[in-house]
Amino acid sequence: MKFRVAKTALVDAVSQVSKAVSSKTTIPILTGMKIQADEEGLALTGSNSDITIQVRVPKKKDDLEQVFVEKMGSVVLPGRIFADLVRKLPGDQVEWLVNEKFQATIRSETAEFHLNGFDPVEYPRLPHLSTDQMFSISADTLKSLIRQTGFAVATNEARGVLTGVLFQLERGVLTCVATDSHRLSKQQASVEGSEDISLSNVIVPGKSLSELAKTLADYTGVVDIIVAENQLLAKTDGLEFYSRLLEGMYPDTNRVIPQNGETELISSTKELLQSVDRASLISRDGRDNVIKWTLRDGKVEVNSAAQDIGSVTEEVVAKVNGPELSISFNARYMMEALRSIESDEIRIQFTGPMTPFLILPTAREDSLHLIVPIRTR
Amino acid sequence: MKFRVAKTALVDAVSQVSKAVSSKTTIPILTGMKIQADEEGLALTGSNSDITIQVRVPKKKDDLEQVFVEKMGSVVLPGRIFADLVRKLPGDQVEWLVNEKFQATIRSETAEFHLNGFDPVEYPRLPHLSTDQMFSISADTLKSLIRQTGFAVATNEARGVLTGVLFQLERGVLTCVATDSHRLSKQQASVEGSEDISLSNVIVPGKSLSELAKTLADYTGVVDIIVAENQLLAKTDGLEFYSRLLEGMYPDTNRVIPQNGETELISSTKELLQSVDRASLISRDGRDNVIKWTLRDGKVEVNSAAQDIGSVTEEVVAKVNGPELSISFNARYMMEALRSIESDEIRIQFTGPMTPFLILPTAREDSLHLIVPIRTR
Repeated sequence: MKFRVAKTALVDAVSQVSKAVSSKTTIPILTGMKIQADEEGLALTGSNSDITIQVRVPKKKDDLEQVFVEKMGSVVLPGRIFADLVRKLPGDQVEWLVNEKFQATIRSETAEFHLNGFDPVEYPRLPHLSTDQMFSISADTLKSLIRQTGFAVATNEARGVLTGVLFQLERGVLTCVATDSHRLSKQQASVEGSEDISLSNVIVPGKSLSELAKTLADYTGVVDIIVAENQLLAKTDGLEFYSRLLEGMYPDTNRVIPQNGETELISSTKELLQSVDRASLISRDGRDNVIKWTLRDGKVEVNSAAQDIGSVTEEVVAKVNGPELSISFNARYMMEALRSIESDEIRIQFTGPMTPFLILPTAREDSLHLIVPIRTR
Repeated sequence: MKFRVAKTALVDAVSQVSKAVSSKTTIPILTGMKIQADEEGLALTGSNSDITIQVRVPKKKDDLEQVFVEKMGSVVLPGRIFADLVRKLPGDQVEWLVNEKFQATIRSETAEFHLNGFDPVEYPRLPHLSTDQMFSISADTLKSLIRQTGFAVATNEARGVLTGVLFQLERGVLTCVATDSHRLSKQQASVEGSEDISLSNVIVPGKSLSELAKTLADYTGVVDIIVAENQLLAKTDGLEFYSRLLEGMYPDTNRVIPQNGETELISSTKELLQSVDRASLISRDGRDNVIKWTLRDGKVEVNSAAQDIGSVTEEVVAKVNGPELSISFNARYMMEALRSIESDEIRIQFTGPMTPFLILPTAREDSLHLIVPIRTR
């Protein structure tokens, strides 16, 4: 195996793939990064027990040659050292030579590295997924769906399917649902090329989705999503991002979402968020981080008190329809929901002081957050 | 106690003072921040067992009123909540009212906070230091001295005086020395108003100095330094920074500094640093992070090898005077010294492969770093 590559092209690819390289040494080969030189250029692969990322560095970019493969082949090199080395090499062009014992020689200007690699045969193969269940979505929409649901998953691994986000697809509409049983977020978006397929119990680990969002951070094109029995693949030009799926049945959450509100509040997302943030300064050291809202004519009164610390009272201007109401809830859940909402104005629908309430952007129908209130003395 | 203050003025002062507020709750009152309203405006104080910071917010700034004191007094408020609250308050003007039970009411626009404070009588008083031993130094020079010595102190608290930087003052020249017994840094600078005083065994904790440098980060004026028996005070307009001093005798380090070099190397600071950084990729997982230099005619050969990982060889162009030499040392010590040096070109003087060597900027006489080599098999 022998090739020459432009340093900048390699640095970008390696920084993407590094996110998937395992830092735990339980499976030693997974602490490595696989490098393959073939007809198309280079393919770099990193993997851990949850996700696998493969990035391709094509031979040419904008008509400029960036990879020159003299002899094809592949090797697995120690991931962390490889990533640092690629970044710190002098010069613009780096020459790579790997012998039959998987020892790599890396030459750049006056520096020469020898790295002991591993046999790529030991490295897990990428799953071959059938494209039967495939749809396309813009990266911005996908990132927005993740941003608005990912925070609501359960973080305790023992919670099983609730640590994932449910993906449902029907009649061209993708629905994402996340809940930790104290709050729930549900978002919808239209997707392309999916009229004929339906997905019902696809559960993607929340952590995988947050890595996917980071990986796609600077990308604004289209993402192809392929779903197989126990894997999801997100694919763009040059990038393949695989995540395992969670096993088990996701609970039916539709029955917990109230259909009608008795009391309704309309207010500025930002002003409500800031007032809850301030009230939480007093309550956050407490077990449930409880704050109380009292809805009156034309305003919300925000209250929070902690015995040793003190108390806070604040009024936020709001349009209130329906009977007056006092309700207590976890300030963090409210802040996370309000921060994720992409609307300047929100509508909150209450059915009573002890029943879940809904937070909705005023101008959209495709987004919903639910919070279960807290019973206070 | 009652006053009104411009939010921005308070935010700046609180962020400075917060650095000193204790996060440990061993002495509960030190987790608080003291606020005093007097004839001059406000004084905020934070303290832990190592440092104390006091910042004054004067009544006027640039002829604009920023503090209006209606009734003088003082109180100690919970530090972390107070700092967050000040940052997150709505509005530009904040009204503060503290009753005789040290309960504070903080009003800003439609928000009203009640915070339970502590009696300021319990808060430690600032030490009164005589100005007999005082000198002045530009903040930039002081920060540079700290930056070039602070990294070389011992980090293990059990090492006593070696966890501090020695300050010596004689005939208007301030000398700072730090060593962890494997390497040493010594820096000198002229200071003002100090011809008559001399200091010989003033040992300032390295941690305090790094906090001082952060506190002075944006300040470019003059700093007055006052030294008393067990305290050092750094003082600027509006800021007082106290640090305890370390007890004990600092060792005489002059005898370990070699006077003449047999082999001398002159090279680019940046190129040497980068080559050591790369070689360290291979060696850093090893116990001593050892790399080897071989000095030959016109170049340094940089070598590093680790059994399981691999090896690296690199050549850096250098002017070499005197006999050829091979020497091994800790790469991190070399990198920290080279990073701190404010000179594009350096001179390194060796007396042999087993004796300490000196790193000096080529164009200056006021800076010196020493590294003890490592014996290799």
